[in-house]
Amino acid sequence: MKVTVTVRLKPGVLDPQGKAIGHALEGLGFAGVTDVRVGRIIELDLAEQDPSAARDAATAMARRLLANSVIESFEVALG
Amino acid sequence: MKVTVTVRLKPGVLDPQGKAIGHALEGLGFAGVTDVRVGRIIELDLAEQDPSAARDAATAMARRLLANSVIESFEVALG
Repeated sequence: MKVTVTVRLKPGVLDPQGKAIGHALEGLGFAGVTDVRVGRIIELDLAEQDPSAARDAATAMARRLLANSVIESFEVALG
Repeated sequence: MKVTVTVRLKPGVLDPQGKAIGHALEGLGFAGVTDVRVGRIIELDLAEQDPSAARDAATAMARRLLANSVIESFEVALG
């Protein structure tokens, strides 16, 4: 089944990629962009069919590999 | 107001980053990962307070800068 892990920088962690996007948008004439933060989504297709077990597996993967817990937080969602 | 743009590779476009994550998960002992796709989320904080106008602005930004329409699709969501 499909599980989506969303990884975001924790509040307070500088986001240079977001800053660059903000500047680029301004340069393109988009006004009123006060903040930009960039995160990533990892869509996993798991052989596991039990929703609860799939969620647990994805959480373990996020803790181990997909997110850097020092600077990032993550959410796991089915589907 | 906050608007989130989610950018994904279109179906059929190769995702080497996803493949690398899949191999890494396998190497760490996570079995049963049949596919991994990686996308990104761009969280915009806009001065615009009208939901419809904010959504239109974010869509224009995605078309112009945030997504590469040749290989990527995007979704815009408020909040």
